[in-house]
Amino acid sequence: MNPKQIAAEKAVESIEDGMIVGLGTGSTAYWAIQKIGERVRDGLSIQAVASSTISEDLANELGIPVIPFADVETIDLTIDGADEVDANLQLTKGGGGALLREKLLAANSRRFIVIVDESKVVDTLGAFPLPVEIVPFAHELTVRKLQSLGCELTIRQKDGANFISDNGNLIADCRFGSITDPVTLHTQLNLIPGVVENGLFVGLTSQLIVGHSDGRLTIR
Amino acid sequence: MNPKQIAAEKAVESIEDGMIVGLGTGSTAYWAIQKIGERVRDGLSIQAVASSTISEDLANELGIPVIPFADVETIDLTIDGADEVDANLQLTKGGGGALLREKLLAANSRRFIVIVDESKVVDTLGAFPLPVEIVPFAHELTVRKLQSLGCELTIRQKDGANFISDNGNLIADCRFGSITDPVTLHTQLNLIPGVVENGLFVGLTSQLIVGHSDGRLTIR
Repeated sequence: MNPKQIAAEKAVESIEDGMIVGLGTGSTAYWAIQKIGERVRDGLSIQAVASSTISEDLANELGIPVIPFADVETIDLTIDGADEVDANLQLTKGGGGALLREKLLAANSRRFIVIVDESKVVDTLGAFPLPVEIVPFAHELTVRKLQSLGCELTIRQKDGANFISDNGNLIADCRFGSITDPVTLHTQLNLIPGVVENGLFVGLTSQLIVGHSDGRLTIR
Repeated sequence: MNPKQIAAEKAVESIEDGMIVGLGTGSTAYWAIQKIGERVRDGLSIQAVASSTISEDLANELGIPVIPFADVETIDLTIDGADEVDANLQLTKGGGGALLREKLLAANSRRFIVIVDESKVVDTLGAFPLPVEIVPFAHELTVRKLQSLGCELTIRQKDGANFISDNGNLIADCRFGSITDPVTLHTQLNLIPGVVENGLFVGLTSQLIVGHSDGRLTIR
């Protein structure tokens, strides 16, 4: 088994009958959804909400009941991957462009379990570009404000045009190199008018499960 | 002259040749744009950026040159109205639904002049519902987070359906009754995932011009 799958399957052990479960997005969350599907076929009774249409489609295919957000008071448990995780369980996420929806699930969950392979564990966040979702209107002004925080920035492209998020916005990939104070940066970013959300997840992780290439698991 | 027009025309005196000027939106900004048009016809040479298509259309009609944001480094001066203004020059804005674009202009301007009639001057902000722009996806969860800050909330309606902002989002009109600490609330709101921007304008006002019904002006 690959390390992502090992971590994902361990996380799915925390799911119990009757829970509302948040489904993440990405190559590690994929394995979690597969395992949830297996447990549902074996009789587990849960309801799910999804952070992307990709994950929702996969859940439907596997027979996992997906419900609308209007029917949800609180999510019991969300399982999702990350681009980077540091020793304080702070994350960067959103390389796939779904950062806002992923953060909405994480922030509205009683428990948020992060599953990664060992390559995602870092001393300091920021080597991976931090995605920041920004409103298209006057984005040139927003870009200058972001650059003034000390990053090199590119507007994410797809097929020769600006990539558009699920919410109709642009993604600015911000290379800070090293993010020494994620909590402060997170607030600074979200106070810039035109910034919808950013890929720093601070104070949200309940548990981190790391899968290693030798088959070991580390849980924090 | 009505008090809005008196305040607006006083503000327009601050515009000088060569400036890039931000045009606000609403019934008071309307008078400012009219006066700017008059000065342009009399030879004033400026360029403008607009916070709404309504204001942009009016500017075009009046012969005020409107330029794209891509061509703007910094806005020299923005003139706009407000829904409420307190003794610390803190504002609530966005009753018209353009709060994000208005805030983008204000936050990217060297000077931001606020023009109101005396009815908008309050001891404490919050009697007027505070508009908060939120992403449609999973907005039920975002609404609960907003309510937990102590407001009564309605999703703004138009023609029997949810009102959609220029940026494709919903507006939650939040009745706090009394906002005693606008700086803290502003940060709390913008840190909620799903909140794009809110109608509190703190630390942005350079000058306040109040027009009174007896024809007087107060400038702070």
